[in-house]
Amino acid sequence: MKIAVDAMGGDYAPVEIVKGAVEAVKLHKLEVVLVGDHAAITKELAKYAYDKNLISVVHASEVIRMDEAPAVAVRKKRDSSIVVCNRLIKEEQADAVVSAGSTGAAMGASLLGLGRIKGIDRPAIASIIPTLTGYCLLLDVGANAECKPVNLVQFAIMGHIYAKKIMGIAQPRVGLLNIGEEESKGKELYVEAHRLLKESKLNFIGNIEGRDITRGRADVIVCDGFVGNVVLKFGEGLARDLMWMIKQELKKNIFVKVGAALVFTQAKGLKKRIDYAEYGGAPLLGVNGISIISHGSSDAKAIANAVRVAKECVEKKVVDCIRDSIHETILGDDEDARV
Amino acid sequence: MKIAVDAMGGDYAPVEIVKGAVEAVKLHKLEVVLVGDHAAITKELAKYAYDKNLISVVHASEVIRMDEAPAVAVRKKRDSSIVVCNRLIKEEQADAVVSAGSTGAAMGASLLGLGRIKGIDRPAIASIIPTLTGYCLLLDVGANAECKPVNLVQFAIMGHIYAKKIMGIAQPRVGLLNIGEEESKGKELYVEAHRLLKESKLNFIGNIEGRDITRGRADVIVCDGFVGNVVLKFGEGLARDLMWMIKQELKKNIFVKVGAALVFTQAKGLKKRIDYAEYGGAPLLGVNGISIISHGSSDAKAIANAVRVAKECVEKKVVDCIRDSIHETILGDDEDARV
Repeated sequence: MKIAVDAMGGDYAPVEIVKGAVEAVKLHKLEVVLVGDHAAITKELAKYAYDKNLISVVHASEVIRMDEAPAVAVRKKRDSSIVVCNRLIKEEQADAVVSAGSTGAAMGASLLGLGRIKGIDRPAIASIIPTLTGYCLLLDVGANAECKPVNLVQFAIMGHIYAKKIMGIAQPRVGLLNIGEEESKGKELYVEAHRLLKESKLNFIGNIEGRDITRGRADVIVCDGFVGNVVLKFGEGLARDLMWMIKQELKKNIFVKVGAALVFTQAKGLKKRIDYAEYGGAPLLGVNGISIISHGSSDAKAIANAVRVAKECVEKKVVDCIRDSIHETILGDDEDARV
Repeated sequence: MKIAVDAMGGDYAPVEIVKGAVEAVKLHKLEVVLVGDHAAITKELAKYAYDKNLISVVHASEVIRMDEAPAVAVRKKRDSSIVVCNRLIKEEQADAVVSAGSTGAAMGASLLGLGRIKGIDRPAIASIIPTLTGYCLLLDVGANAECKPVNLVQFAIMGHIYAKKIMGIAQPRVGLLNIGEEESKGKELYVEAHRLLKESKLNFIGNIEGRDITRGRADVIVCDGFVGNVVLKFGEGLARDLMWMIKQELKKNIFVKVGAALVFTQAKGLKKRIDYAEYGGAPLLGVNGISIISHGSSDAKAIANAVRVAKECVEKKVVDCIRDSIHETILGDDEDARV
C-alpha cells in the first residue's frame, strides 16, 4: 500500500510533514510517496534514517496557498502538490492522499481528480469527536456551507459506513444535530432531513442537541457544514482555553502548584483523548478514493496518524462500502427511486 | 422597581424560583411580584423571612408546559403565569419579567404582550459567554432558527447597545460568526450580512471563527439562532463533560487525590466564571420591554442573578437605547431608507 502525502501543505510544511511520513512508514508497514518540491523534501529526508524502499519523492513545482480561491487554484495549478497527489491515485500509483494544506484545495483537488461516488451529490468532511463514553463522528464539518435535506441523509449513510467499518461500531446510532428534541424543531432543512432519516433504514435516534454531543448518545451526528465547522472549531478553542484558564488559576497559589503537577501528570490520558493530533485527519467521504484532510497546524504525530487513518480506510474498502450502501439505501433497485 | 417573576417556569419551579426571589429582594433593593399558583407560592414563601412589602403574589391559574407549541399556547392560555407576567408590564404594574420556563413560551408571551421595537423585525436572545479576557455577548442563541441578513445586522445593533450599556464596554467590537476569516466565506446569508455590517456605523471587526469565540477577540458575536443555540449548548455540555473527565482521571490515583483537592479548591474562581447560574439569564432583545429568559434548570442563585440582570436593564433603559439607536442606524431620518 502506498499513501501520497502532500509535503507542501500545512503550517509546518515540509519539516513536520516529512518527519511524520518517516514515523508513519516505521509504525504502519506501508509506503509513502512525498509530493512537492524535490529539493526541499530530500533536504528534510536527509535528517532521518529510514528504509529507502518505503519512501519515494514525486516532484511538484507548484503550491496552493491558503489565501487562494480553491476552485480556481486546483484548475490552474495542475502541478501543485495537492493536485499531483490526487493524480497519483487516479493513475493507480497511490492508494490514498493525506494533506494538511488548504481544506478547500484538498477538497477541490479530490473532487476534480477522483470524482464523486455515484449517488452522492456532495462529499462531506467527517471528524472524530471525543465523548464521555468514547468517540462520535460529526459530519459535515466544512465541505458544504449550504445543504439540502437529501445531502444530510447522504452524510448520515456515509457516516454510518465509516462508524461501522473504521470505528468498529456494529449498529451505529445516527443523530441529527438540532436545537430541540422534538422532530418539529429547527429550521426547514432539519425538519425535512428528520423526516427522511426517520424513513431510512438507518438506526436513526432523532435529534441531538448541542449539549449532548459529548455525552455519547449518538455514534454519528449529522449537520450542515456551516454548523459543523463552527462546532468543531469552537470545541477546539474552548478545550484549549479552558485548560489554559485552569493552569492560570493554579499558578496563583504556590501550594497548589504541587497538586497541579500531580494532576497534569495524571491527566495525560485525558489530554491524549482531546488532542486532535491523535486522530490525525478527517476523511473526505463521498469522493471516489481515500482523501484525508489534516489540521492546518499538524505536527509529525498528526501526519503519522493521518497516514494510519488513510491506511485503515484503504484496508476496510470504505469507498466500495459507501458505493454499495448508497446504492441499496438511496437508489434501491430502481435508480429512478432516488430521493 | 418591580420585577415580575414567573414562579411556575423551570425544572425546579416553584421551589427554587421562590427562593431565588427572596434572595433577590434581599440583595438588590427592589420589589418582586411572583406570578403563578397562589397556594403553591405562598406555601414556599412561608419558609423564608423577608420584607413583606417587597414580595407580592399575583395568581395565574394556568401553566405552559415545555411540550406545548408555544405560539398556540400563549394565545390560548391567557391566564398562564408567563402571559400574566408580560401583561403586568403592559399595565405598568411591573418593569420587567424573568422566566425559566419554555423559551418559546417566554418569547411568544413577550412578543404578544409587549410587541416589537419599531425597526426590529425579529427579537433575539443574547447570551453572555466567558472568554480568556472577560466576556462576550453571543446573539441570537435561539429565537430565530431562520434569519435574513438584515436580521443579523439588527442583532448586531442590539448587541452593541447591550455591551455598551450593561457590560460597560465603550466601543464594543462586533464580529460575525463564520467558517473563515475572508469576507467571501460562509453561506449567502453570512456573506451578505458581512457586507451590510461593513457598511454600518458599528465597530465591525469582521468574521470570527469558532475557535476564536473564547479568545476574547470580539465583544459582540452575531449569528443566526440555529448556530447560536447549538454553540451555546455545545459549550455548556463540553465544559461540563471536560470537568467530569478531569475528575475521573484524577480518581484513578490515590496520590493524585491530594493534589486534586487542592486544585479544585483553587479552581472555584474558574468554576464561577463558567457557571451559567452566575449570569442568571439571557435578555430577549428587540421587544418593547425587559424580558429575561433563564436556563430551564435554574436554581435560586440563577433566578436571583436573572432578577439582577433585569434590574440593570431597566436602570440603563436598554429598550429606549435600542429604540433610539435602531432609528439612527437603520432608519436614518427617512423611514423609507430602511434596509
